[in-house]
Amino acid sequence: MTGPASAVDLIRRKRDGGALTADEINWLIAAYMRKRGAIPDEQMTAFLMAVVWRGMAEEETVALTLAMARSGKQLNLRERFPLVADKHSTGGVGDKMTLVVAPVVAACGLPVAKMAGRGLGHTGGTIDKLESIPGMRTDFTADDFTSLVERHGLALAAQSSELAPADGKLYALRDLTGTVESIPLIAASIMSKKLAVGPTDLLLDVKVGRGAFMKTEADARTLAALMVRIGRAAGIRTTATLTAMDQPLGTTVGNALEVQEAIFTLRPTKRLANNPKFWRSDLARLCLHETALLLRSSGLVETLEQGEERAREAIRSGAALAKLDEVIVAQGGYSAIIHEPYHIVAAPVGGALHTQRDGWIAGVAADEVGAIAMALGAGRARKGDPVAPDVGLRIYAKIGANFEKGQLMAAIFAHGEPDLKMAQERLLAAITWSDTPVERPPLILGEVE
Amino acid sequence: MTGPASAVDLIRRKRDGGALTADEINWLIAAYMRKRGAIPDEQMTAFLMAVVWRGMAEEETVALTLAMARSGKQLNLRERFPLVADKHSTGGVGDKMTLVVAPVVAACGLPVAKMAGRGLGHTGGTIDKLESIPGMRTDFTADDFTSLVERHGLALAAQSSELAPADGKLYALRDLTGTVESIPLIAASIMSKKLAVGPTDLLLDVKVGRGAFMKTEADARTLAALMVRIGRAAGIRTTATLTAMDQPLGTTVGNALEVQEAIFTLRPTKRLANNPKFWRSDLARLCLHETALLLRSSGLVETLEQGEERAREAIRSGAALAKLDEVIVAQGGYSAIIHEPYHIVAAPVGGALHTQRDGWIAGVAADEVGAIAMALGAGRARKGDPVAPDVGLRIYAKIGANFEKGQLMAAIFAHGEPDLKMAQERLLAAITWSDTPVERPPLILGEVE
Repeated sequence: MTGPASAVDLIRRKRDGGALTADEINWLIAAYMRKRGAIPDEQMTAFLMAVVWRGMAEEETVALTLAMARSGKQLNLRERFPLVADKHSTGGVGDKMTLVVAPVVAACGLPVAKMAGRGLGHTGGTIDKLESIPGMRTDFTADDFTSLVERHGLALAAQSSELAPADGKLYALRDLTGTVESIPLIAASIMSKKLAVGPTDLLLDVKVGRGAFMKTEADARTLAALMVRIGRAAGIRTTATLTAMDQPLGTTVGNALEVQEAIFTLRPTKRLANNPKFWRSDLARLCLHETALLLRSSGLVETLEQGEERAREAIRSGAALAKLDEVIVAQGGYSAIIHEPYHIVAAPVGGALHTQRDGWIAGVAADEVGAIAMALGAGRARKGDPVAPDVGLRIYAKIGANFEKGQLMAAIFAHGEPDLKMAQERLLAAITWSDTPVERPPLILGEVE
Repeated sequence: MTGPASAVDLIRRKRDGGALTADEINWLIAAYMRKRGAIPDEQMTAFLMAVVWRGMAEEETVALTLAMARSGKQLNLRERFPLVADKHSTGGVGDKMTLVVAPVVAACGLPVAKMAGRGLGHTGGTIDKLESIPGMRTDFTADDFTSLVERHGLALAAQSSELAPADGKLYALRDLTGTVESIPLIAASIMSKKLAVGPTDLLLDVKVGRGAFMKTEADARTLAALMVRIGRAAGIRTTATLTAMDQPLGTTVGNALEVQEAIFTLRPTKRLANNPKFWRSDLARLCLHETALLLRSSGLVETLEQGEERAREAIRSGAALAKLDEVIVAQGGYSAIIHEPYHIVAAPVGGALHTQRDGWIAGVAADEVGAIAMALGAGRARKGDPVAPDVGLRIYAKIGANFEKGQLMAAIFAHGEPDLKMAQERLLAAITWSDTPVERPPLILGEVE
């Protein structure tokens, strides 16, 4: 016996559908994290696969998340700041929301302390996107991260390995052993890092659809509700929203391309800002919605309508763009790109894709678009692999849009002709058409309490 | 990619309820057995837990068993001998059947090549029991094992680590990771070792009940049927019988005590051999049954009745005892114990247990009796632990027996007074009574085709 029970006993209990106590879960994680582990990888794997099989009760998931959060440094920012927010998206194709929402929220007077990942998949994570800005630094010590928040009300940093190291160790194991696909484990992984930062307010954007990890609204809702309960159990005002991820978000997929698009969204000309069409774009709508949720959560506004108006004003006035400028400068980046987004390098081989028929766009398969971006080199399959900042796609085709034959539908940025040809062919096949009008599908599927 | 598919792909497929091909299973086992394994323990654990969860199709289990059998040396005894038999019991409390059946079968003219384990649990395995005979050797090379069979028609050896090493490696991992409880994995583990020996005929005794690994007849029947199909798929004439394990088998539990009892069963006096009661004891009945099944399987007899008669004759004539004598001598043991079984040492502290009431025995909880033997020191919890040969219990109380108050019901052999007292108290609680007559429960539950 090396703890409240032996590891095998705990594995067997979970395997047989039983539950572990918080003490047992604490012991399991602490023992796994010891240098000369009382619990080797194979026992942890057995436990993880048993969790994939049997699931976890809410109290078990809360205990696991807290144990993982406690495995390293805890910033507890909410003890230093009266208000400090964080947001997290479960990820989708073309999801550059952090780059848009964080400056807007900060410009509205709610400080944002965001640690983001590099991520695996079709493009890099928020950090890879930020690093396509020349000179931009994202690796900070916990103290420097806190100082950035203090001085600028905004920090956009890479996830610190000092925070929730149990998550890093467990995630690497899960990736190797086919134990990623478990809602409690996904919730604990995401939330352990959030709890270690410890904001006052947290917004979770849970994506649903073929381009997201959660394919069904039911699964997404379950994950969202679980994360909300974990956050609240840890004393963080936590809100979640479900949003659609069947077609790519916005019009770009690719690291630098997405930074460009984020900047364009933050700097509409006066004429554009007065055009209702600008505010109806998915990027703008989601930005207003997420900002409003965070402002209401923090108590800075009372209603979502007030929150959206504050967000709109922060964009119109240039305050949000100025905030992004400020944080780029503070983090060592080349801020001229704010005013000249085309300074961001694009891949040398570009090609256009024109419509080959008249009609309405019925579908733009987000998962396939992600796979194309990945094939162009925008993403990474393995931790530590480099990502190409300059490749990707700009897709003007959105579901419900009407085109005539021969119109520009997409542009592709690649490193060579064969890649370009591959991307053109695959993208053509990923877009489906209708002869009759198609409704624009809902973007925001609902909040989760 | 390191094979037909990556290990994670195979794990995920099994996790999601899919099946692996024989090639994929071969690759998995071969890669796991490589020195610098392409497959680390944590990936194999994930696969094993997924198998506990999802099960395996019969073809998968056959492929796994064959892959494990091929992981080391293969004796293929059936290429050297026209007839050569093996038997295996899934194990129970007081199960000393190999010590009785193997000499009887060999004395009937069917050579027996038996490799046995040391086992975990309430007492040691057959090998530990044999080693309570002074001087008895059980570790032989594959060649010496084959020579023993050739010269004596009988060898009782410890499982060779040269045979089916994948089973040893996998079993150690399963023990550590809570992945023992899976019928396909149990079947593959048992049968891989049998296939590596490669007899012409194989008898499987699958125990059912509270003292056995299989608690229900349905599970035992599933396991038995699966093992029969694996054996036959490998070209071995395989038969299985289900037998009861709710009360201990015979009247002794403990290593040396069980050897004594086996010898007593093989050397009835003329008067005893003429007493039908002797042949009605569970040990004698099961011996005749198992011998008959093997003799019929091999074609040496046509019916079970003929087989039982041959077995009875081998015991009556002393031929079976002479065969045991011969093999003890051949393996270096002190054969005088054949004629003076009480030479086998008994533990220094002995104590009797008398009935405290009149009535019929309704139950003798085999699992609890096993736990008492274990607590006395007869068994091992971990591989490599020593077992005490001299401790154990002799229990005269059998279900259905009628006792008056004050009769001798059991004797306990322990290493000290506290152990003795513990065993007396626990044994008293393990035996339940009835005021009305109780039927003797069935011993042989049926053959499995």
